[in-house]
Parts: sequence; C-alpha cells; structure tokens
Amino acid sequence: MKSRLPKVLHRLGGRALLTHVIDCAARLSARRAVVITGHGAAEVEAALTAAAPGGLQLAFARQEPQLGTGHAVQQAIPLLGDDGVTLVLSGDVPLMQADTLQALLAQCDGQRLALLTLSMADPTGYGRIVRAGKEPSAQVRAIVEHKDASEAERTLSEIYSGIMAVPTRLLRGWLARLDNKNAQNEYYLTDIVKFAVADGVAVVAHQITDAAQVAGVNSPVQLAELERVYQLRIATALMEQGVRLADPARFDVRGTLDCAQDVEIDVNCIFDGAVTLGEGVRIGAHCMIANASIAAGAVIHPFTHIDGEKLGVQVGEGALVGPFARLRPGAQLGAEVHIGNFVEVKNASLARGAKANHLAYVGDAVLGERVNYGAGSITANYDGANKHRTVIEADVHIGSNCVLVAPVTIGAGGTVGAGSTITKSTPPGTLNVARGKQVSLTSWQRPAKAPKA
Amino acid sequence: MKSRLPKVLHRLGGRALLTHVIDCAARLSARRAVVITGHGAAEVEAALTAAAPGGLQLAFARQEPQLGTGHAVQQAIPLLGDDGVTLVLSGDVPLMQADTLQALLAQCDGQRLALLTLSMADPTGYGRIVRAGKEPSAQVRAIVEHKDASEAERTLSEIYSGIMAVPTRLLRGWLARLDNKNAQNEYYLTDIVKFAVADGVAVVAHQITDAAQVAGVNSPVQLAELERVYQLRIATALMEQGVRLADPARFDVRGTLDCAQDVEIDVNCIFDGAVTLGEGVRIGAHCMIANASIAAGAVIHPFTHIDGEKLGVQVGEGALVGPFARLRPGAQLGAEVHIGNFVEVKNASLARGAKANHLAYVGDAVLGERVNYGAGSITANYDGANKHRTVIEADVHIGSNCVLVAPVTIGAGGTVGAGSTITKSTPPGTLNVARGKQVSLTSWQRPAKAPKA
Amino acid sequence: MKSRLPKVLHRLGGRALLTHVIDCAARLSARRAVVITGHGAAEVEAALTAAAPGGLQLAFARQEPQLGTGHAVQQAIPLLGDDGVTLVLSGDVPLMQADTLQALLAQCDGQRLALLTLSMADPTGYGRIVRAGKEPSAQVRAIVEHKDASEAERTLSEIYSGIMAVPTRLLRGWLARLDNKNAQNEYYLTDIVKFAVADGVAVVAHQITDAAQVAGVNSPVQLAELERVYQLRIATALMEQGVRLADPARFDVRGTLDCAQDVEIDVNCIFDGAVTLGEGVRIGAHCMIANASIAAGAVIHPFTHIDGEKLGVQVGEGALVGPFARLRPGAQLGAEVHIGNFVEVKNASLARGAKANHLAYVGDAVLGERVNYGAGSITANYDGANKHRTVIEADVHIGSNCVLVAPVTIGAGGTVGAGSTITKSTPPGTLNVARGKQVSLTSWQRPAKAPKA
Repeated sequence: MKSRLPKVLHRLGGRALLTHVIDCAARLSARRAVVITGHGAAEVEAALTAAAPGGLQLAFARQEPQLGTGHAVQQAIPLLGDDGVTLVLSGDVPLMQADTLQALLAQCDGQRLALLTLSMADPTGYGRIVRAGKEPSAQVRAIVEHKDASEAERTLSEIYSGIMAVPTRLLRGWLARLDNKNAQNEYYLTDIVKFAVADGVAVVAHQITDAAQVAGVNSPVQLAELERVYQLRIATALMEQGVRLADPARFDVRGTLDCAQDVEIDVNCIFDGAVTLGEGVRIGAHCMIANASIAAGAVIHPFTHIDGEKLGVQVGEGALVGPFARLRPGAQLGAEVHIGNFVEVKNASLARGAKANHLAYVGDAVLGERVNYGAGSITANYDGANKHRTVIEADVHIGSNCVLVAPVTIGAGGTVGAGSTITKSTPPGTLNVARGKQVSLTSWQRPAKAPKA
Repeated sequence: MKSRLPKVLHRLGGRALLTHVIDCAARLSARRAVVITGHGAAEVEAALTAAAPGGLQLAFARQEPQLGTGHAVQQAIPLLGDDGVTLVLSGDVPLMQADTLQALLAQCDGQRLALLTLSMADPTGYGRIVRAGKEPSAQVRAIVEHKDASEAERTLSEIYSGIMAVPTRLLRGWLARLDNKNAQNEYYLTDIVKFAVADGVAVVAHQITDAAQVAGVNSPVQLAELERVYQLRIATALMEQGVRLADPARFDVRGTLDCAQDVEIDVNCIFDGAVTLGEGVRIGAHCMIANASIAAGAVIHPFTHIDGEKLGVQVGEGALVGPFARLRPGAQLGAEVHIGNFVEVKNASLARGAKANHLAYVGDAVLGERVNYGAGSITANYDGANKHRTVIEADVHIGSNCVLVAPVTIGAGGTVGAGSTITKSTPPGTLNVARGKQVSLTSWQRPAKAPKA
Repeated sequence: MKSRLPKVLHRLGGRALLTHVIDCAARLSARRAVVITGHGAAEVEAALTAAAPGGLQLAFARQEPQLGTGHAVQQAIPLLGDDGVTLVLSGDVPLMQADTLQALLAQCDGQRLALLTLSMADPTGYGRIVRAGKEPSAQVRAIVEHKDASEAERTLSEIYSGIMAVPTRLLRGWLARLDNKNAQNEYYLTDIVKFAVADGVAVVAHQITDAAQVAGVNSPVQLAELERVYQLRIATALMEQGVRLADPARFDVRGTLDCAQDVEIDVNCIFDGAVTLGEGVRIGAHCMIANASIAAGAVIHPFTHIDGEKLGVQVGEGALVGPFARLRPGAQLGAEVHIGNFVEVKNASLARGAKANHLAYVGDAVLGERVNYGAGSITANYDGANKHRTVIEADVHIGSNCVLVAPVTIGAGGTVGAGSTITKSTPPGTLNVARGKQVSLTSWQRPAKAPKA
C-alpha cells in the first residue's frame, strides 16, 4: 500500500478492511474471532479492539516471524476449541458476504473440509480446483498450482479463494503435519487438502461467481476498485428499498444510512456515521451528512454540511436547511425551522418555526419558537477563555449584524435593533438598541488612489 | 417503486415519466392524447394537467378495475376518432424518441398494424416476433410468448416492445373481440395481432436496436439507470453543438439548457428549469443553476448556487460570480458586476460594475453603477412584518459590516463608514457614520478559564 | 469543435492539446520543435510561446494554403537540419507517451522510415499496414487505404497512426517528389512510404495497442473522452505511488500534483496549477485546490476553495481548513492554524495557532501566534481607493462582528470587544471597545404586517 498504516487498517466504506471481516464473522454468530497479526500488530489490535462489534469475543494471536499461511493459522490454534469449526478468512478481503460463508459452513457441516472457490473467466496464475467429477457436488481431489498444472488442469476455471471452513479438531491435526520443504520455505495452509484426501475426509467446495467477494486489497488501486463495488452494493440495496438516488455511481455511505419511504438523494452526497432520514426527506446535491437524524419532510438543500460527531444533530419535521449551511454537534432544529445560506449552528436548539436564514452564527444558544435571527448576527459565546450560553425567547426578532454577548437572555417578544451589540439581558417585549448616532460629514474628501511607488 | 407516488409521476431529468411520453406525443403533433389512469388517477391527472405542453389536447380515461392492457385501451376508445391512427405508448417508458415513432407511424400508413420491435442479444422471457420471411420488410405472423415458443422460435431475437400504431377504426373492432380466457383472466392488447392476421390486415414491424427507448421503469434501480441514459443523451447533444463538458458522466440537466458558442462547463454541474448561457460563458465545478440567463463572457466560479424560480435571475455580460455565491429570485446583475464569496443576492439589481465581493446580503435593493458594497454588509429589508427597499446610488462606497435599514437611500457618490447602522437616507457625496467612540481600557482583566465543575 | 478557438488550443487536463505534444517532444530532448500552423496561426503561436517548456527550441512554420499533410511537412523542412531525425506528430493527438516515441525513434535508428502503428479490433475505414511477413519485425511494404484494399488486406488489423520518424535528409528528398494527382489534389505525407520502398530504404513499424495514445481530437465529444483517459492515467499513477483516492473516476488534475506518503483525497476534488501535499494530508470531498502548498498533517475539509494564483498559498503543518473556506493568493497559514466556515483569507499571514473559525474576512493582514479572530469580523483593507494593512499581534482576541479599519495595529495580548469598529491602533494588553450604549425601549410598537395593496 506504500503507507505507514498496516494494510488491514486501510479504510473501505469508512471502516478498516479488517473490521469488515470481523463484522461479517459477527453476523455469523461466531463463538470467537481470532485475529492473527504480524506487521503492525499492536496498532491493528488497538484499532480493532476499539471498533469490535458487540457480542463477538475477540482474541489476538501474533505471528512472528511470518512463515506462511499454515504457520499463521497454527498461531491461532491454541485459542480455538476442538468441538467447533474454524473458518479461515483474510483480513484484506473485505467484501465477503455472510450468506456466502453460511453456505460454506453448511458444506463443511462439522465434518468436511469445505473450500470457497471462484469460477474465473481467465484463471491464469491461480491454483486450480481439481474435482473427482463434473457435477457441482463432486468432491475436491486437489488444489494444483498453476505452474504445476497439466494442460488439462489449466483449462479448469475454478480456483481456490483462500477461504475455507474446517472442523477445528481435524485442522489442528493437519497443521501439525505441515512442513516447509518448498521453494519459499513456508508452511502452506493449502497443503491440508492433501492430508484430508489421504485421511479419507471429504473435501468439498462452495463455488461462487462474484469475484468481488474474494478480492483482496494489495494496492491503493485495488482499494479504490473495491470501494466502488462496495458503494454500488449499498446504493443498490437502498434503491431496492425504495430510495431514489439520482446517480448510484456518485453516492457514498461510510457508516449506516437508514431511510424511510420516499427519500430522494441527489448526486454526490456522502453519508458518514449513523444517519437516519425520515419519510419524504430530500437531500440536495453535494451534501455531506454525518451522525444526524433528519425527520420526515425535511429538505436539505445542496452544499450542506452536517456532522453531529458524538453529540449528534437533529433536524425536525419539515425543516429547511441550506444551501451552504453547516450544522455542527448538538444542533437541534425543531419542526419547520429554516437555516439558510452561510449559517453555522453549533450546540444550539431552535424551537419550532425559528429562522436563521442568512450569514449567521448560532452557537451555545437556545432559540424559542418563531424567533427570527437576522442576517449577519452572531452569538458571541466565547470570551477568550470560557463558553457561555445565549437564550433567545419565543417570538424575538434579532436584527441584522447584531452581536449577542453571552451569557445573555433576550426576553420573549422583544426586538434587537440592527447593528446592536447586546451585553445585558433584555426585558420581554422591548426594543433594544446599542448603536452610535448617525452623522453625515459633507466636508469629507474621498481617499484618492495613491501613486505607485 | 415502493413509493406513495404513482409510478408515472416519478421524475426523470426533473420531469414525470409520463410527461416525457406526453411531450413526445406533442412533438408528433398528435391530435389528442388520451391518458389511461388506474391507481392514483386523480393525482396523475392533476400533475399532468399542470405540466401539459401547449397545443396538445389532453383527455383522461380511468381504468377501474385493471383487467389487462387490452381492457386499458378499451377505456380510451370512446375518446378517439375513427378516422385516425392510435399510437399506444406506455407511461413508464420515458426515453422513446419522436423520430422512432414517426417511422412506426410511416409503417402503419393509416392501414396496417405496426409494431415497434427490439432486437435483443438475450431475448429470454420476452414475446418473440414471428415473421413471414427473413427480409426486414417481412410481415409479422404472430407474437409468441416465450413459454409457448418452439425451439426454433426461441432463437428469434426480435421482441415486441409494447408500443404499436394501429388505425383506430380497426383497433375499435379488434378490441371488441378480445376475451380474457387465459391464466390471468386478463384482456391482452397483443391478441389483436391474431385478429389482424385473420382479417388479412398487414402486420408490420419497425425494429430498433436501442433498448433504452423502450425500457420501462419498474424500480428505483431502473429509474436511476434510465436517468443516466437520459443525461448522457443530453450531454452528447450539447457537446455536438460545441459545448465543452469536463465530464459528461457528471452533468445533469433537469430542464432546458441553451448554450451559445464556446461555453465551458466543469464537472458536477446541475441545471434546472430554463437556463441560457451566452457565448463564452464558463461554469465552474459543482454549480447548481436554475431558471437563469447568463450573458456572454460571464464566469460562474465553483460552488455557486443560482435559482431564479419564477422571477428569474439575470447575470450580465462579463460578470463574475462566486465561488460560494448564491443568487436568488429577482437577482439582476448588470455587466461586469462582481459577486464574491459568501454573498447572497435576492430581488436586487446591481448596475454595471457594482461589486459585492465578500460575506454580504443584498436583498430588495437597487445598487447603482460602480457601487462598492463592503464585506459583511447587510440590507436589513425585513422589520419583522414587512419588506422594504434599499437604494444605493451610483459610485457609493459602503464600508464593512454596515447595516442599511430599509427603507433607505444612500445618495450618489456617498460613503458609509465601516460598522455603521444607517437608518436615515443620506445626502449625495457625504461620509456617513454611526459608530460608538473607540475607548481603550488598560485596567481590564482577561477572563480566565473556569475550572471544570 | 464548433468553436472560435483553434482546435489545438482546446484544453485537456488544463493545458492546450498542442502543449501536450510539445511537452512530450521536450521530454525526448528534441533539438528543435517546428510547429506547423494554419488556421488561427497567430493565436496558436502566441499561446504556445507563452507556455513552451524551458530547454526546447521552438520554431513556427505557417502552411498557407493547406494543401495536405505532405505539404504541411514541407513548410517545416527549411527549419530542420539534414543530420537529424524528424518525428512527425499531430497537434491534436495529446496523449502520446514519450516512451512510445523513444521506441519509434529506436526503430528509425537514424536510417529507416519508422511508422507508429496501432492494432485495432475493427480497423474498417483506416489505412492498413501491409508487411512483408508475419513476424513482428517484418518490414512494411505499403500503407493501403481502406477503399483500395483487397479482401485479404482488409483482414489486416494494423493501421497507420499518423506518426512517423524519418531521417531528415531522406524526408527532404521524398517530400520534393510528392505530387497531388489524387481525388483531393493534396500532397500526402504517406506517399513517402512508396518512395522509401522504391529507394530500398527499410520501412519499419512500431506497433502499439493503446488506442488512446494515437487518438485525435475532432469534436467536444472526443475531447471529453480523452480528458477522462488522461485523468484516469494520472489518478492511477498517483495511486501507484500510494495516494488513496476515494474514487479515481471523480478526480481531476489540471497541473501537477505532488503527494508525500499517506495522502488521502476524497471524491470530486480538482487540482490545478502546482499543488504539493505533505505527508498524511487529507483532502475532503468537493475541494478545489490550485497553486498551493499544504504541509504534513494538514486537513482540508470539504467544500474548500484554494487558489494561490501567482502568489501561492501556504498551509502549515497540522492546520485545519474548511469546510466552506476560501484561501486566496498570498494566504500563508502557519502550523496548527484553523480557518473555519465562510472565512476568506487573502494576502494575509496567520502565525502558529491563530484561528478564524467563522464567517470572517482576513485580507492584507498579519496575525500573530494564537490570535483568535472572532466570528463575523472583517479587516477593512480598502478605503475605496487604496489597500492598507492590518497588524494583529500575538495573543490578541478579536470579538465578533468587529471591523478593523486599516491601517491599524492591535497590540499584543489585547482584546477588541464584540461589535467594535476600530480605527486607531490599540496598546498591548488593553480592552478596546467602540460601541453604542445599550438602551431598552419599552413603549415601542412592533411593525404590523401591511395590508396587501
């Protein structure tokens, strides 16, 4: 990958490659997942521990030095119970589907060595699966490396994917019989096929045709390719649920996106973290939305940036947001709230019908119902050392280019005149201004353009 | 579609599927278009009536209950004159081209039953067209359903598209002879082929190879596929006229886009409603432009949002707009006007050479020639109840962070000092300020960071 | 191209088509490049002279009238030395690779006529290469036009690309023997193949399979196609160096992009001019970055627009920029500087740790370390005639919605109260305010909604 980051921590769909594999194992209700690490072991273990799905028991085995795939699996053996089945997955093969593995496990059935295989149009270079017969259920006789394959064997289009399911008890025994008498001096896991055949244990294959499921990531080019496969898979699933996407090829989800009925999403939107969209929500083009819940009927106009991070963002029913709006953590918009262009909202709640339509900052504030927050107005929440809250009660009208210096409360139904800097709380129903007197100087001379030096 | 919206009202290229079909009929100068509705009839009729093209007589026939395609067409028959030709189209097949239908009508020639057919690489599952001979003009003998087809018939690659042209007089008679003695107990329109053959009426076919023209929309996935076909078709047509598109795959037109010579459009732009671009106009990346007319030589920088809605937006010759600018309904920019970043213009005219380059709101205003409108300045057009106008005469210089409280007029050649809130009109040529006196407090102590609770 | 611009000046990857060809010649260390111009000659010559790479001697020959490809090359002959090799390229074939031409020149070897040829799946319509034998090194006997080709010749899949290398001495002689006795009355360069064969000079071919390298641009559609080929080529090269691109199909480079290790670039970014990205830099989605240097660890959030034009933009280590930020020429951000949403920086330096996070304009200014520049604040750098500088010394806190009227200096450690317009420099460590007194009017009546006229 030409990166300082261990390969399995590179992200696809916003999650580490290895996390995709672990999440897949969790969906299979695996009893335990043993992660065999090598280079960057500590970093991998830390990242995975932080991101592990609930309900899955995670264990780590370090392989040092790295002496081949069989040697790798040997490191995990002490952590596995003899009564189960071991599923051997690859940390850099992120797009495996749980139902494929279920089918593989069914083939294994607690007693057979089951290989996941792929039918390829051009299998040149790959190890071929040699079967005992032509029928789909024919048992596997061997995996033959391309270079060792006969003419006839090279015509076989079925290859080994690197993924297998095997009864742990048998696996343990076979691993103990591996040797490294080969060109690379490595212990190859695939050698256990020979032992199974020799021992009279059935070797079976579950063959798939979707190459993406068993595709590994070995370069940024491959990572980008699988990213698009992954995103198109998500886009298709959402469309099948009824979501209208203007262009599935320009759509990215890096977390979970839950959509109610009749959601429409325009081109080039990106979703991150946990996002829920209520019925009839429309998302305009070029939006970035993360960690947010958007209620039914809300419209997010183009060029809107929402990220709730840990606090989340709530957008109420029928609210209108954007274009060029930014909602930051703790923004809570009630129903029918309007947030317009060049407006930033952070850690602030706006009650039903409140509006901040133009060039404004609303931070650490509580706005009541129907508040009209003028263009260019700012809640000065930071005194250089601490953050303070601004309270704007219901039906207040804040004029343009005002500053509300927190802590401050603007009483219900009051008005703040344009251009005022308000430092003291104001009584309800009053007009409050803090302005210089307007004067007109007739004798004044405009500056003239200075001559170039 | 898994939607509350009737399928034919789903939008493609910004218009309902059915509107595409109706517009196509209008281009054929159809005497009358009869729309047969079923589920959601009232909603479909209302939407279509609102969007119907001029010059086309529109009628509706409701099919309740829905007893098959033949039964559907029966509902329309009372509304059709016997002397004409009936063209049977599908409301969910939006990409049909008028010239294809012209060719089909020519085949019909007022006396034949003409079927629109498609040559498919893999016709499995579709009804095959059985012809009397191999030559392209060979008459059609039958449409044979896939399940009823012989081995030989299954090798035929020509299928029926669902679209036909038929003399109305003949159609009326044949429809009366339909029965529903089949597995679904439905009246099938395609059964009229049998009657035509029996009656000695020539059945002919116009065969096309462009599957998109006869592709129906039955899911959001198919809708998204056809959306891309449609957009690429528009992109190609514009490029053939000379428009330079940085990436035809990242380009969307949802209305009409008229371009003069040497227009350049960067990636990810979206056009909606009626947009005209004059000679040499350049549109930067990630722009959203709707209902606007942009004159020759204007440059729209990236991240610009323009939507004139019903009032329209005018951008004058050589004007510069953006990045991060928003022009709203009624924005009228004269020649050489500059609108810069984080600036919103609404219902305001700016005369030649006026500039608002930074973080500003110009609404309900008239700006004269060469006005310089300072950063952060706002026209306070709304007093909480009514909107008022601001007039800024020629050659005025508005300083930074000013508020002009409308109604107000700034006299020609005048200046408004930075930070002023102007509530009264100002005489021409004067410097006007409304500011507090600057004081410096040396004894003041900075706030200290509060200890965490 | 349906354009006023001469075809070879149309841009691909931000550079004129012809510039790509010239740059390729420069990479071959050509002694001299002779550009033969026709229509729009003066415009082409001017553009090319401005953009010519250093180290390449550029000459122009005008072909007027245009009497064919052989006649075109004749115009260049007086400018070429007899001792060299002439490489004939096309100004509208931009994606030729230097290593391909090196291989062609090796085939020429100073004594042979070497043709660049292409193997095509469907060569219909193209001139075929007829060779003396089947082996790759077999000499060329003729180029046969499609219409003149025999059945057997039409099965040949090798065609002439329009590019050749030929010893200049031989070329000069052959060109003198050309005639225009053909249907078009033109002098064809390809006729020299006959002369070479007749003279016993070896004619050889270097065959490639990458059609893009020899693809010409004759329409905006073709230009857009090659633009995507070019961009994907650049994207792939960057990924092979280790850059992670979220989507190589949504990525545009129009200049040079140099990336250190572990750079990540999200979807839809555009790079223009010379851009360098330091180690671990992350670029968010929908960014436009031109003429800038971004140091290690900096994060550019989505929707950021950076263009340094001639002055450049510097972003320091670990700085955070955006979303919705704009950095203009001369913006120099030190380490750990934060520039937030709706903030514009122009010709201003911000020292380590300075912050301008919300809705602000910083222009013609110097900000010291740790300065906090408040939301909505503006440096009023323009008095209507001249630009002036603002100096904000270290540790200053500028409140919200302030205006600093340049020239002005805010002394170190000072504070400017929210809403102040500062016209005079302030002493270090002081609190400075310029505000009206806050008053509350209880008797005031809110405006009522005016009845509709």
